Amino acid sequence: MNETRYDWLTDRWVIFAPNREERPDQFKLNTRAVPSGGIECPFCVGFEHETPHPTLVLPEYDSDATTNNRKSTNDPARNLWKVRVVPNKFPAVPRTCLSDSLEHAMEDPGTCSERVQNRKRSAGQADLSPQASTATLNNSQIFQRRQPRGGHEVIIESPHHVGSITTLAVEHIAVVFEAYRRRLLYWRAQSDIRYAVVFKNFGADAGASLFHSHSQLISLDFVPRDIERIQERLALYLRQFGSCYLCEMIEEEVLRGERVLLETEHFVAICPFASRFPFSFSILPRKHGGSFEEISSEALQDLADVSKRTLSALEAARPFASYNFVLQTSPFQSRQEDSSHWRLRVIPRLSKVAGFEWGSDCFINTTTPELAAAVLREHLK
Amino acid sequence: MNETRYDWLTDRWVIFAPNREERPDQFKLNTRAVPSGGIECPFCVGFEHETPHPTLVLPEYDSDATTNNRKSTNDPARNLWKVRVVPNKFPAVPRTCLSDSLEHAMEDPGTCSERVQNRKRSAGQADLSPQASTATLNNSQIFQRRQPRGGHEVIIESPHHVGSITTLAVEHIAVVFEAYRRRLLYWRAQSDIRYAVVFKNFGADAGASLFHSHSQLISLDFVPRDIERIQERLALYLRQFGSCYLCEMIEEEVLRGERVLLETEHFVAICPFASRFPFSFSILPRKHGGSFEEISSEALQDLADVSKRTLSALEAARPFASYNFVLQTSPFQSRQEDSSHWRLRVIPRLSKVAGFEWGSDCFINTTTPELAAAVLREHLK
Repeated sequence: MNETRYDWLTDRWVIFAPNREERPDQFKLNTRAVPSGGIECPFCVGFEHETPHPTLVLPEYDSDATTNNRKSTNDPARNLWKVRVVPNKFPAVPRTCLSDSLEHAMEDPGTCSERVQNRKRSAGQADLSPQASTATLNNSQIFQRRQPRGGHEVIIESPHHVGSITTLAVEHIAVVFEAYRRRLLYWRAQSDIRYAVVFKNFGADAGASLFHSHSQLISLDFVPRDIERIQERLALYLRQFGSCYLCEMIEEEVLRGERVLLETEHFVAICPFASRFPFSFSILPRKHGGSFEEISSEALQDLADVSKRTLSALEAARPFASYNFVLQTSPFQSRQEDSSHWRLRVIPRLSKVAGFEWGSDCFINTTTPELAAAVLREHLK
Repeated sequence: MNETRYDWLTDRWVIFAPNREERPDQFKLNTRAVPSGGIECPFCVGFEHETPHPTLVLPEYDSDATTNNRKSTNDPARNLWKVRVVPNKFPAVPRTCLSDSLEHAMEDPGTCSERVQNRKRSAGQADLSPQASTATLNNSQIFQRRQPRGGHEVIIESPHHVGSITTLAVEHIAVVFEAYRRRLLYWRAQSDIRYAVVFKNFGADAGASLFHSHSQLISLDFVPRDIERIQERLALYLRQFGSCYLCEMIEEEVLRGERVLLETEHFVAICPFASRFPFSFSILPRKHGGSFEEISSEALQDLADVSKRTLSALEAARPFASYNFVLQTSPFQSRQEDSSHWRLRVIPRLSKVAGFEWGSDCFINTTTPELAAAVLREHLK
């Protein structure tokens, strides 16, 4: 049974998910898995029955055509999907089973009622968020644990067996981002969900276990400590200087230019001044706003274009580099929404995190962002 | 030129060390490098001239015998060393060149005087430690950077080309820990040094670049943010409950037993309740104390024995696992010394840190510490 446990010393929750040991790993033997017609990929068109019932299929047609179940595998309409979102078969966090979020009655009613009980119990408890726990701590709370609530979804980015999102057309990538937007809006509307992380693991070194291009969303009933800290810092800056730290940073970076990859009408891509990882960059909206979910259709198209161009530059500059990307949107039901500024962070995995970093949380980066930006700019098309 | 840069948003310093791009990597082509008589290993006996002048050689004989330079390569006495500590040829942090720490005049005087100038300048500045910077921040400080001061040393653990510390006799491992103790005492005595991390990267996945068994020490003129936070938490616990959090935790863990690997007179090895990594464990002294450097000779021998047994169990349970270990001692010149409790943390690298973790600092662990402890206990000799 999955659970979260609180590390009092570092003031953070850790998710225990033994079920994820069971998930398949196509990279285990071969770190450069390539498309193969012979492999039955659960994310490929025609294998929709291998995944749970989707929570979103884009583009949306009538429900008969987009709902894929075992009976409809011969339906030609199922070939029409571009992006499918399905619950992860090996979830880090079990799916919430609040009645208002039970779109598909997939849960064992017994389990569900048990969880609702747990939820009621925990609603009566003192807030167990890391900060609150400091105030209520006593000796018996050294081993705090609880059932996590939330969801874990896979965003399948193409019906075809492609490995990289950059092989998709800009219009198709925009559909992927639209799927992120819709699912974040869904989770934001759930009363017991406080945060959701949308992320991509590309390549074995970045933690990918399947080749077929996909990303993931994990929603949580708590705000991770690091996200909370960043929100607090942004709120502090707003209070002290009356402006957004990231807006100021963007303005300053654009003036200096040396760490800028590219600028478009809506976005600026920058190798951050104090980045922890070689060649990492962030795509930041010029327009201040905490929620990615509020992005306009026009900006979404622009984001797809900027993502494709910058990720392609990374793939050209460092072939075979694994990378993670993370969409950093504001926490749900946050009082600090005004000071928040969303961004898409790309983290290439070109170096190993080693003992020094784990022992201090102080990172050693061997590539300056100025050099990384210059190299990436050369590979921009 | 190396420098540290401050990430205001996450309130942490990052070290930029482009020089480390130049370091050799024996694992780059072959992830399982093995001993080979044909390879000239700079850490092997007979190749002492390949490394900078040592800052410590153990056991200590008369200085003629232990000082190794090009002229003395035929001196049979050089075969007597068990552990050598040398400055890293590719330091993450350049060596301090304060007159009181200049044991060996290796620095270019020009560079050195320049650094002393920098030091004088920075001494006149407001304290740039993360916490202090919050108070002094203004818009022009978005891009804070400075020259780091400290040191980066390599602890060569054997004159012979062995890969794992577990192949050494317990008495020999005790000499390795004695080298840590002596070098930490040295760095603790430097007035401008605030912290030192002793760590080991074993195997390619843990960031090792050379096969020959070694560990490293990086000393810094600031306390990394994570270390500072842990100190604050320990101090908070002491204030609130009048006791040490780790002492309480050890007592509770020993009572429960399920996460305990082994107990000796001086130590307890535990898989922590909320560990972020599968199979990670900590070796904790039963006797409360913040500084590893104050360890008794008897406890040092015991630590060598516990380390050998637990690391051997890990190697037996998960053959070919890379791991990091980190000696977490208290910051130097700390006002919170009393509440501190040192420990040795072992972090196996069996899973990849992925996008979710980088985006939230919330970790997903697929192995419970109870299972890890049971598996490791089976492999203890």
